[in-house]
Amino acid sequence: MPPMAEVPLPPGLADALRERLGSEAVVEGDGPVATYMHEQRGLYPGQGRLAVRPASAEEAAEAVRLCRRHGAPVVPQAGNTGTVGGASPRHGGEVVLSLERLNRIRQTDAEDGHLVAEAGCTLAEIQQAAAAAGRFFPLSLASEAECRIGGNLATNAGGLNVLRYGTARELTLGLEVVLADGRIWRELKGLRKDNSGYDLRDLFIGSEGTLGIITAATLRLLPPPRSRRVALLALAELTPALGLVRAAQAESGDAVVAAEIMSGPALAMGQLLDDAPENPLPGAAWYLLLELASPDPRADLDTALAAALEPAEQAGAIEDAVVAPSEGAAERLWRLRTAIPDGQRRAGASIKHDISVLPSEVAAFVPQALAAVEAAEPGVRPCVFGHIGDGNLHFNLTQPADADRAAFLERWGALNRVVHDEVARFGGSVAAEHGVGQLRRAELARCGDPLTGELARRIKSALDPEGVLNPGKGAAL
Amino acid sequence: MPPMAEVPLPPGLADALRERLGSEAVVEGDGPVATYMHEQRGLYPGQGRLAVRPASAEEAAEAVRLCRRHGAPVVPQAGNTGTVGGASPRHGGEVVLSLERLNRIRQTDAEDGHLVAEAGCTLAEIQQAAAAAGRFFPLSLASEAECRIGGNLATNAGGLNVLRYGTARELTLGLEVVLADGRIWRELKGLRKDNSGYDLRDLFIGSEGTLGIITAATLRLLPPPRSRRVALLALAELTPALGLVRAAQAESGDAVVAAEIMSGPALAMGQLLDDAPENPLPGAAWYLLLELASPDPRADLDTALAAALEPAEQAGAIEDAVVAPSEGAAERLWRLRTAIPDGQRRAGASIKHDISVLPSEVAAFVPQALAAVEAAEPGVRPCVFGHIGDGNLHFNLTQPADADRAAFLERWGALNRVVHDEVARFGGSVAAEHGVGQLRRAELARCGDPLTGELARRIKSALDPEGVLNPGKGAAL
Repeated sequence: MPPMAEVPLPPGLADALRERLGSEAVVEGDGPVATYMHEQRGLYPGQGRLAVRPASAEEAAEAVRLCRRHGAPVVPQAGNTGTVGGASPRHGGEVVLSLERLNRIRQTDAEDGHLVAEAGCTLAEIQQAAAAAGRFFPLSLASEAECRIGGNLATNAGGLNVLRYGTARELTLGLEVVLADGRIWRELKGLRKDNSGYDLRDLFIGSEGTLGIITAATLRLLPPPRSRRVALLALAELTPALGLVRAAQAESGDAVVAAEIMSGPALAMGQLLDDAPENPLPGAAWYLLLELASPDPRADLDTALAAALEPAEQAGAIEDAVVAPSEGAAERLWRLRTAIPDGQRRAGASIKHDISVLPSEVAAFVPQALAAVEAAEPGVRPCVFGHIGDGNLHFNLTQPADADRAAFLERWGALNRVVHDEVARFGGSVAAEHGVGQLRRAELARCGDPLTGELARRIKSALDPEGVLNPGKGAAL
Repeated sequence: MPPMAEVPLPPGLADALRERLGSEAVVEGDGPVATYMHEQRGLYPGQGRLAVRPASAEEAAEAVRLCRRHGAPVVPQAGNTGTVGGASPRHGGEVVLSLERLNRIRQTDAEDGHLVAEAGCTLAEIQQAAAAAGRFFPLSLASEAECRIGGNLATNAGGLNVLRYGTARELTLGLEVVLADGRIWRELKGLRKDNSGYDLRDLFIGSEGTLGIITAATLRLLPPPRSRRVALLALAELTPALGLVRAAQAESGDAVVAAEIMSGPALAMGQLLDDAPENPLPGAAWYLLLELASPDPRADLDTALAAALEPAEQAGAIEDAVVAPSEGAAERLWRLRTAIPDGQRRAGASIKHDISVLPSEVAAFVPQALAAVEAAEPGVRPCVFGHIGDGNLHFNLTQPADADRAAFLERWGALNRVVHDEVARFGGSVAAEHGVGQLRRAELARCGDPLTGELARRIKSALDPEGVLNPGKGAAL
């Protein structure tokens, strides 16, 4: 990274920002600024002492120009719900550029199937705007009430419905981006076919604010589901799970929108929460949560689900199954899955991994990785869950029940290496859906392809030659 | 472009290529080399005198290294079916790198839903390999028997099914690319979720061989359709067409895989071909061809189609309609559409446009653009057809019946400007699905966003600083 980093906050910058953007746009002082420096895992306490809150793309561009002129790097921040330290200042001389006031839905076009949202809209607000127009925006994450779309796009967020609808990238038709030099690149038209240039859009998406600051996006809207069914299956082994997903896809006409796998111990950690619903199928080694949803007004999801599951039940591949008879029951089945991260926190310190392998390799990867971590850390309590249809697992490790919390957390790097070595053996990814941020940089440097890193650095230098944007984060190692 | 261009073919290069790649890999001499220089519209006769045909990615990389060392730029060529001159040498000193011998399907993985194809596989071969594995690769173009996937990816090909399945980009999970310096970047794993770096994949896709030479790709396979229906609707006006598409989407659960609009005169030009089937609904101003296809084994497309069309028929928005009662009849309806480009050639010289606007703007754009061209060129015969669901129109102009062919073709630039001015007024694209190549460069420079061009040039310089790859083509103007 260029020498701009680690420069202390330059004098006069706060005043200059206040003069051009107004006093409500500038946050200073340890107390007020703390909220922009806090990061949910507490691993990367932000080092900055200044945040700026532009209310328009033009103000964001002006803020970048002023920061650049004063030699202060800029750390873009949307909902600040990320888990890899991508939105926290790393060095101390940076200015946090919060997108929270860029929070308008600029346009909704149901006929063409898109809306234009500013980067500070929460994901839930976008889902609601789509629904109000009789359409559907399928991106769905645990943090959807708080996360903001600018962050979802900067990290190419995945979530629960990637299997059917793709990641944030696949749901985006256009962007508005503030560049490192403070100019605005605007391509919000929403055309479905446009091969008139390099794909800058997808380059900015997933670049974690290191190539440009996304200030607005044109997002695809889809036909809303007309019916849905949620089922929970208890399995003695992980092996049959993918076949069950494939059968459900085939019988339903590709209507499986989520396929979540949970180990028995993972589901049990979710049960530690006071509000967790009872597990209707206790005692299984593995659980598969399936959601089917179809925009076809004549779809028969019950028949499809029965056709998919009956052969497996007869073959003994399913121990037991329950299909939610109501929306409330469906929500309770989902809560068994969504309770896991909070429940895991209740169970002790944890070391997390966000990895992916090919779906067909999940059943081989998991026991091999479990054996490796048990050998490296006897008594460790693995909490394995994730999106089996995408091969994306949250392969998390909770401290042994009687271990010292701090001592366990000191094993972070070592256990990362154990898990990621197994991922590498399977040709997988060590940064599947949460991004690289600060958290995955060292392991990406160790496991990643050096040529990919070199190309990333060349692109970073081409688009941000002075290192203005989010230094020390992401993939341009 | 750097000074490398316009250098005559360096002595010794052919011998060096022969020595390293074998004599069957090197094509010299006016006769043998002509096939690599010919371009289907005859607008850009290739200026090169040497072609190299590597049989592997390693040989392709070696060829690029040798060409670079000898100071000869490289023009990648796959099926050579492009329509914008992107695969023809422009200056005379280039070497054509043909991908035709890189023609293996390396792997088919039905369980994970992908296959790995080399760049020289024809699109039809890939469709067949997918079908043989019980899966479906939806990309479909008029030239699918001859075009090769490397070219489809270099141009981010669109075609008939984008409405439902997306462009070539959206169907690609990974690439193998020979870089400008002759190294190989390989990312073929096929992971559905991987946020461990910048999106280099989508940057190479659509870059028309100017950033790297795609030698292989991991392509998504989807559940195969279990049923399909094809219908032809006769319309008095263009206006209701999009509403009919949207109704069919809503009633069928998003099963509309193609929605082709044809003007009466366009369909009549197709009828000039000897093998053209009879038009079952003669005399209409506009035609809408709809194809519905569903992977749902229990889908009822007849009921869906009836539910979509009946309200429109009762409201008088449809003059007449026919649903193909058999696969043979469906193919005949499709042939009414696919005959148009060849029929148009029969009708005289033509000036073509590959434009897109928002679908909701098509019905306003078309009469405005028609009036503009009639004013600029009285007697011109517009041949308008395309993919209304994507807003992508082939807004083609055939010479007045009694005009001189050469004199009409001299109006190329002037009529391009007339049409593209209208496109710009609607915020559309002048290069929707065929790419930029040589043909659209001047108009892109005139109509495009200068900042987009500047960013493209910076990326081109970062990844191909010496201008080795496909000089004088594409978007980095």
